[in-house]
Amino acid sequence: MKALHHIAVCVRDLDSALRVWRDGLGLELVGVEEMPARGIRMAMLRVGDVMIELLQPTSDASEVAGFMARHGEGLHHVALEVDEIDSALRQANVAGMSEVVRVAGAGAGGTRVAFLHPRSANGVLVELVETVPEMNHRT
Amino acid sequence: MKALHHIAVCVRDLDSALRVWRDGLGLELVGVEEMPARGIRMAMLRVGDVMIELLQPTSDASEVAGFMARHGEGLHHVALEVDEIDSALRQANVAGMSEVVRVAGAGAGGTRVAFLHPRSANGVLVELVETVPEMNHRT
Repeated sequence: MKALHHIAVCVRDLDSALRVWRDGLGLELVGVEEMPARGIRMAMLRVGDVMIELLQPTSDASEVAGFMARHGEGLHHVALEVDEIDSALRQANVAGMSEVVRVAGAGAGGTRVAFLHPRSANGVLVELVETVPEMNHRT
Repeated sequence: MKALHHIAVCVRDLDSALRVWRDGLGLELVGVEEMPARGIRMAMLRVGDVMIELLQPTSDASEVAGFMARHGEGLHHVALEVDEIDSALRQANVAGMSEVVRVAGAGAGGTRVAFLHPRSANGVLVELVETVPEMNHRT
């Protein structure tokens, strides 16, 4: 396990949430992104080496809207960066964490992710993230 | 805001939680501590520069036991490291985060902490931590 990659928080309204996390707590806003396919609008803030994602649902059909209907605002998931996602999933499985919610192939930037069900991890939805080394030697 | 200091997760049973977070997810166990005054037993695990604390209530009167009675297992709080806690609280206050749950004076190692109510931070209990520079030059 290499690092805590990000934590994600569901919010009702991104603009008022930015007043809390950026203005009130002083985190650095890195960017705001619309993700229509996931039905969310997301703000990314940096604190040290970790990102805090604020997720506002933009569609009642989005998974985040469903989560908020059950739980209200609050932490949605914790993401851990791993070297290799398949071996990380095998290790989790051996320890009895068998409920994998979703494994996604190479996404933006080649990142691969998997989600472990909260029932497997003390009520916390855990995302595993396999990042791709940055291309530092472009020509 | 300097860094994400730690996140804390409430668990029913610390030993089975260690099978998840240490064995299944591969986090490094730093230590286990009994804290009778707070009615908890705590395991600290490291992931990169961030600590994950697992909190098991050992007394029905503990705040963590009360939290779990309402919410079950799951994330309890997120702690952010600040340079100076009084100015961090002033900044939060200006942004409308007025509900400070508790401010504690110098604790173990001289650390000062304050808690901002989840109502002020999108359902997340936020701890501010002012750490003391490590004593690297002991004689």
